[in-house]
Amino acid sequence: MTSVASEPQLAFRDSLVAAGILTLCKVDGIYGRGTAFVAAFEAVDRFVTEAGHADQPEIYRFPAVVPREYLVRTDYLRSFPNLVGSIHGFDGGDAEHAALLRQASDGEDWVHFAPSELVLLPAACYPIYPMATGELPKGGRLFDVLGTCFRREPSDDPARMQAFHMHEFVHLGTPESSLAFRDDWLARSHEMLADLGLQVAANIANDPFFGRAGSMLAASQRENALKYELLAPVSSQDQPTALASCNYHLDHLTVPFEISCAADGPAHSACVGFGIERIVLALFAEHGLKPDRWPRDLRKRLWQ
Amino acid sequence: MTSVASEPQLAFRDSLVAAGILTLCKVDGIYGRGTAFVAAFEAVDRFVTEAGHADQPEIYRFPAVVPREYLVRTDYLRSFPNLVGSIHGFDGGDAEHAALLRQASDGEDWVHFAPSELVLLPAACYPIYPMATGELPKGGRLFDVLGTCFRREPSDDPARMQAFHMHEFVHLGTPESSLAFRDDWLARSHEMLADLGLQVAANIANDPFFGRAGSMLAASQRENALKYELLAPVSSQDQPTALASCNYHLDHLTVPFEISCAADGPAHSACVGFGIERIVLALFAEHGLKPDRWPRDLRKRLWQ
Repeated sequence: MTSVASEPQLAFRDSLVAAGILTLCKVDGIYGRGTAFVAAFEAVDRFVTEAGHADQPEIYRFPAVVPREYLVRTDYLRSFPNLVGSIHGFDGGDAEHAALLRQASDGEDWVHFAPSELVLLPAACYPIYPMATGELPKGGRLFDVLGTCFRREPSDDPARMQAFHMHEFVHLGTPESSLAFRDDWLARSHEMLADLGLQVAANIANDPFFGRAGSMLAASQRENALKYELLAPVSSQDQPTALASCNYHLDHLTVPFEISCAADGPAHSACVGFGIERIVLALFAEHGLKPDRWPRDLRKRLWQ
Repeated sequence: MTSVASEPQLAFRDSLVAAGILTLCKVDGIYGRGTAFVAAFEAVDRFVTEAGHADQPEIYRFPAVVPREYLVRTDYLRSFPNLVGSIHGFDGGDAEHAALLRQASDGEDWVHFAPSELVLLPAACYPIYPMATGELPKGGRLFDVLGTCFRREPSDDPARMQAFHMHEFVHLGTPESSLAFRDDWLARSHEMLADLGLQVAANIANDPFFGRAGSMLAASQRENALKYELLAPVSSQDQPTALASCNYHLDHLTVPFEISCAADGPAHSACVGFGIERIVLALFAEHGLKPDRWPRDLRKRLWQ
């Protein structure tokens, strides 16, 4: 299952663990974050919040779990079934409990668990759309969301975590305003990451759509230049990592939730998403494992 | 499944939703948090962090998901199977995917999902113990952890969320130092909550152990006064809510992970846990739904 990391990726992971910045557990892609990581995480998250502050977004935070129905309506289950984390709950009594404990103590699969109505949140913006059903105000709406996200893709590359945080700004509006928002944030996010001293490049990209139909969806996404990623070296110079992405969704996430523009028919949407753990790791990769030795300008930007 | 809230609890929930402080989704106990909630949440979390800062804890943050093995070794699966969220993943190809989409679009249970090695984190401190295996330094160890927690107990009382955050300080040391830590924090947390203008009372309590054996475990926990809760009115004056708890674990969480004290044999542990959402809700209940009208002293304590 676990995708195998390259040698530089493993070396970077080992150096982070040796420095107490990350801790390992027995599942790949799940890490504890030590004191230095936490301090940098909070600073980067604040840096992102402040970059969007002047636009006066509506601020929302959502749990790590959402109704599974959202993944059906957003087509996530169609596009990325392999990445989903579905939450199951115990539905037995005393006798089933005894059977469960026997299985578990032998390291076997747990029995008497049935699907609940909940799944893990895979992207920060999904809970926004069901909330926005109806007619948008003139000028659309703008949201600031920080998501506790999960994607089931075990890897021992520390830049590909299963559990991570994504900070997004999301615009709902007309096709024109959505595309303009995406392009504006492509420039702004590039400048932000450069301001952190990172070597950033923007590239057209596609999502990792599942199965036979997936390759066509990926090709169409690239042809229409719907997704750009901002990449920088994290755990490898040769294989840079996407630190942020700027996405134009067309009406893909607004039509299913019946979000519309006053006179102009269905709404469109766009978002910029910052991978907070990845940006933190990029800082450690670029500036070294000791934040007290990071460039004075950078420290000032993050901590003053 | 959903436990039914009393009339004052529902009225409080409705007032929070009407004020845009919380948003509902189709699953009970899962809420979005609006701008005012987020600002109070961040302030309360900072208030808790600062209360423990002088003791120089080791700061760690962990994901919302942990290896399921932790729930076996900590006896959580024995004590609270009904509260567990187990993560299952899709294990099919194109044909199974087509069947899954048919089921899902009909609102049926999802098929071809199998247990992963992960479960949702039910309490902030659990990932600490596997990290601390071995001999403790003299004086023990002290941790600051903020957990993104889940317990499967749907309720429409807003003070009982399925997904919530718990900020804990955890001590590992001798029996004497663990008990002293618990008692020290019982006094400190009482004072902290009173400083927020809340009407707090301390009570001996027990965890909601499952099944026939559970009532004996609960009685023994109360007899030995292992758990204290700090309660205050949140969504009901008659049924106050636990905002924090102070727990002495004996060797229950240290022996399974082979944590020991130098000359003194097995280690013991204790923790204080603050329910951040519950404290925020208690502030709204006590001081009103408009934070800009909260008492000047309180605003100063939270935001300066």
